[in-house]
Amino acid sequence: MKYLFKNAKIFSGGKIIDGCVVIDGENIAYVGKNPPKGHFDEEIDVCGNVLMSGFVNAHCHTPSTALRGISDDKVLEDWLEDIIPKEQSLSNQEIYYSAMLGIMEYVRAGITCVEENYGRLNDVVRAYQTAGLRARIGIGFPNPYQDEETSLEKQLDLVKSAGFMPVCYAHSVYGTNEENFEKLITFARQNNLPLSTHLSETLAEVGDCSVKNNDLSPPELLEEYGFLDRPCTVYHAVHCDKDDLELLSQYSASVVTCPSSNLKLASGIAPVYAMTQKGINVAIGTDGAYSNNSYDMFKEMFLVATLNKGLLNKADILPAQEVLKMATINGAKALGFEKLGDIKVGFKADIILVDISSPHHQPLNNVLSNLVYSAKSSDVYLTMCAGKILYRNGEYYISEDTKKIYAENQKIKQKLRR
Amino acid sequence: MKYLFKNAKIFSGGKIIDGCVVIDGENIAYVGKNPPKGHFDEEIDVCGNVLMSGFVNAHCHTPSTALRGISDDKVLEDWLEDIIPKEQSLSNQEIYYSAMLGIMEYVRAGITCVEENYGRLNDVVRAYQTAGLRARIGIGFPNPYQDEETSLEKQLDLVKSAGFMPVCYAHSVYGTNEENFEKLITFARQNNLPLSTHLSETLAEVGDCSVKNNDLSPPELLEEYGFLDRPCTVYHAVHCDKDDLELLSQYSASVVTCPSSNLKLASGIAPVYAMTQKGINVAIGTDGAYSNNSYDMFKEMFLVATLNKGLLNKADILPAQEVLKMATINGAKALGFEKLGDIKVGFKADIILVDISSPHHQPLNNVLSNLVYSAKSSDVYLTMCAGKILYRNGEYYISEDTKKIYAENQKIKQKLRR
Repeated sequence: MKYLFKNAKIFSGGKIIDGCVVIDGENIAYVGKNPPKGHFDEEIDVCGNVLMSGFVNAHCHTPSTALRGISDDKVLEDWLEDIIPKEQSLSNQEIYYSAMLGIMEYVRAGITCVEENYGRLNDVVRAYQTAGLRARIGIGFPNPYQDEETSLEKQLDLVKSAGFMPVCYAHSVYGTNEENFEKLITFARQNNLPLSTHLSETLAEVGDCSVKNNDLSPPELLEEYGFLDRPCTVYHAVHCDKDDLELLSQYSASVVTCPSSNLKLASGIAPVYAMTQKGINVAIGTDGAYSNNSYDMFKEMFLVATLNKGLLNKADILPAQEVLKMATINGAKALGFEKLGDIKVGFKADIILVDISSPHHQPLNNVLSNLVYSAKSSDVYLTMCAGKILYRNGEYYISEDTKKIYAENQKIKQKLRR
Repeated sequence: MKYLFKNAKIFSGGKIIDGCVVIDGENIAYVGKNPPKGHFDEEIDVCGNVLMSGFVNAHCHTPSTALRGISDDKVLEDWLEDIIPKEQSLSNQEIYYSAMLGIMEYVRAGITCVEENYGRLNDVVRAYQTAGLRARIGIGFPNPYQDEETSLEKQLDLVKSAGFMPVCYAHSVYGTNEENFEKLITFARQNNLPLSTHLSETLAEVGDCSVKNNDLSPPELLEEYGFLDRPCTVYHAVHCDKDDLELLSQYSASVVTCPSSNLKLASGIAPVYAMTQKGINVAIGTDGAYSNNSYDMFKEMFLVATLNKGLLNKADILPAQEVLKMATINGAKALGFEKLGDIKVGFKADIILVDISSPHHQPLNNVLSNLVYSAKSSDVYLTMCAGKILYRNGEYYISEDTKKIYAENQKIKQKLRR
């Protein structure tokens, strides 16, 4: 399909430019002031609204969506005690429908690419395939939801043959033992794959790591394992001191910050400004619906832009433009996707249209600022991934009956209440 | 007009109950499981969505709305240098239209009652009257936008004769001198009026106050002025230590917390949990669009519920239910409105309907949690104030041409760019 988007405010290369965008197949074929000549399957008048890259949600456990709100306002231990048995009780079919509910939320909210950290790979892969969403999918062990009987080779084959990007995902230094870390790192090395893990999410994790590992912090332990030698992404990094950040920077690790989840689970506020000062590539993730409780990159951007301002009493750090990049091109970089996360010729056609006509955007003094400080995920009115429209004005195009997704999640809710 | 709302999840008395609500004139006439008999001008099927009190936005400078995004990501001094001359350049008519734009955003977002702290009273009162929104309106001096030539008596008469609640509003201990504080407090005493002021918003304010006033903190200075002897409301209270909070608690002052604004302007994070532990009545405000940059009480609620969790590493504090009360009935209490902020018989008919059918609310495990952690202001689809519908499914009923409001704000934008 060939689309012409005209009369758009395009977020491209960190700036807003007025013009047109042509999508040809799966890629962006043209970006310019005036519409090019030629035949288009559809011409879409953006009416002065924003056209930008779809968001890269760089860390999530999407099949947890059905557990949204099931255990809120509780300390971590009580939360885990609530969540884990319920999550483990989900059947394969339930995992699929819970993931599909999350994917509906993604496309409604302009998220076109996800780092999926879950396990239960058959069902997860099926959900992403059905929807046509872009994803990097974690393979590995052990985590509470992982299909441990499946070899890493088979997991890799499953993810690759379905057309998704694989990443070797170790849960964390507290959830994955040294032997499994070593196996996973060896496998990553042999297959030229990147690595990922949760890192320094809570103070307890950092203290515990130090006690058990000769005073090493979690990043230092990762260095000792050889984890940092490979291209890698770490999630959270809330409790990293300057030596930790220096280490992550030296090894070119990307950090995915998940501010809503970190606040709501009382983990803390990540030193995002310090990361950027070290030159670390910072991306943004929503984390799972049971800790967050919604997949809204606008909310996360607002938090990334303002939390460090408030904490450090510096209003001029982490400006809107930089945070928009974190939610798009930095995410693509963290996940190893090339030509993704910006509106440029040759880039992948993952784009969203954001309505800026509502009162909360007026009188449009600064569109970049609005996208971070005023916009809501409900402002997204069209979501396209790889040149295919997945959401438009209330309609979903995800190859699954949305009423069925709701009904199946309703059944999960009833089951979990028992 | 008499309305029957049926098939609603009603947030009443801190809980969600299933049932019906009848509005008769300006008040709630019935709340119960089954619909009562009788004639209704309209029966509205809420379809299992939420019916709750409209939000009380307990601190805002609404006529600043046209300045949204005009000076972001700057330190306070640069921000003030940008904002103040631009704001002072607005004509009376521009103030009116800028306020009307803010009011459009309010009713779209389910805000039905506002604490208005601005001055330029004629235009502000006209805007609220036109829209039919409930407000407590500050009278006083001096602040940068105040009509100082108008006597307090005349200001009071203007606000009261227009049917609004008055409050004697001193800008702050740094912006209002002792003489004017004394005049205002005397006037408040003579006319049996409450008082309000910005308080301990920044560390600089606290330090400066201490240097200039024999080591007194801003709350201690207010005590010395006699300000705290009257019913009073203080905005922000970000940098209050435990003695300050004890003082505010002893005098039964209400605090209005404005988390977005405090983060974005790099003021800090207010000790909201400590306030609640002292028994202080905490309400929530958005502050002005130039510091925030949108009027979204759902965003503020998320922040109030999570910032103290993250800062104090306590996930079980400030639960959703408590924060919902802050945004409704606590706000009404702070502003001195009786029978407002809850869904009960005899209460004022300020109500909103919140759509919980979108993916980000599913599968509805916990409606209370959803309202704080998942909901967006765009979920509001009907806003009623004093029994009159002001917004419904994209349509505004605010006695002013919404296209004209947009066009006039567009002109303000052009003017401020020059």
